[in-house]
Amino acid sequence: MNKIEHLGIAVKDLESANILFEKLLGTPHYKVEEVPTEGVRTSFFKSGPNKIELLEATTEDSPIAKFLSKKGEGVHHVAFAVDNIEEEISRLKKEGFTVLNETPKKGADNKLVAFLHPKTTNGVLVELCQEIIE
Amino acid sequence: MNKIEHLGIAVKDLESANILFEKLLGTPHYKVEEVPTEGVRTSFFKSGPNKIELLEATTEDSPIAKFLSKKGEGVHHVAFAVDNIEEEISRLKKEGFTVLNETPKKGADNKLVAFLHPKTTNGVLVELCQEIIE
Repeated sequence: MNKIEHLGIAVKDLESANILFEKLLGTPHYKVEEVPTEGVRTSFFKSGPNKIELLEATTEDSPIAKFLSKKGEGVHHVAFAVDNIEEEISRLKKEGFTVLNETPKKGADNKLVAFLHPKTTNGVLVELCQEIIE
Repeated sequence: MNKIEHLGIAVKDLESANILFEKLLGTPHYKVEEVPTEGVRTSFFKSGPNKIELLEATTEDSPIAKFLSKKGEGVHHVAFAVDNIEEEISRLKKEGFTVLNETPKKGADNKLVAFLHPKTTNGVLVELCQEIIE
C-alpha cells in the first residue's frame, strides 16, 4: 500500500458535483471517463499526490445507484496504490480479508483493481489499484 | 488543498481496529492520541504521503459516538492539507461552503483544523488542516 491513490465519492449529478469540487479543491477535473461494465461515469481531480474520483450512476442497478439509495451522497471507497495487485490480494486473503475480486478487473483511469469487502475492513470499502503499464 | 492529509475512519474499538489496519496497510500505527475536547481517541498510520486516522468515541455525546450510532463504522471525514487555513476558510466561505469552525481549532496530530458542513460538499465531511509550527 504505497499511498491513497484516490478517494471515490458517490454523487447524484456529476455536472454539478464537478463545479462544486472545482471550487473546493481549487482545480478543475482533468478527465471524465465512463465505465459501462460498472454502470458509472466518473470524473477525476488531482490533489497533490492523490486524486478525487466522483462517481455517478448510469444504470439503475449500478453499485453507485444502490449506494446512493441506501446511504446518500458521500465517500464510497478509498483506493490504495499497490505495485503488484496479485501479490497484495494473496497477502490480504492470508490475513483474513474477504477479497471481492480474486482476479483483478479493469477499472477507470487505466488501473487493474480489486475490492475488499467492507465487512472485513471496519465498514470501509477498500480498493487496491495497480497502474496498467502497456 | 495540497494533498489528502489523512482519511478519518470511525471505529467501535480502537484496539481491534489497530490490529486489523496493521494487517491491511502492512505497517503498525505510529501513535495514539486522545483529544478530550472532542471525546475521541485516535490512532495514526502512514501510507506514503498520507495518513489513516482511526477514531474511537470516549464519551457518549462524542461526534464519533453519534456517527457510529447513525451510520455504523466507516469513513468519517477526509482531511486536506492547506498552507494557510485562515485564507482557505475565507476563500471557501466566499465560494458558498458552510464552514463549521470560522476560527480554526486545535486538532489531533499537532494541527489547526476546521470542518466544512457535509450538506455543502456532497455528503462528505471535509476537514482542512494546517501543521502547527512552534
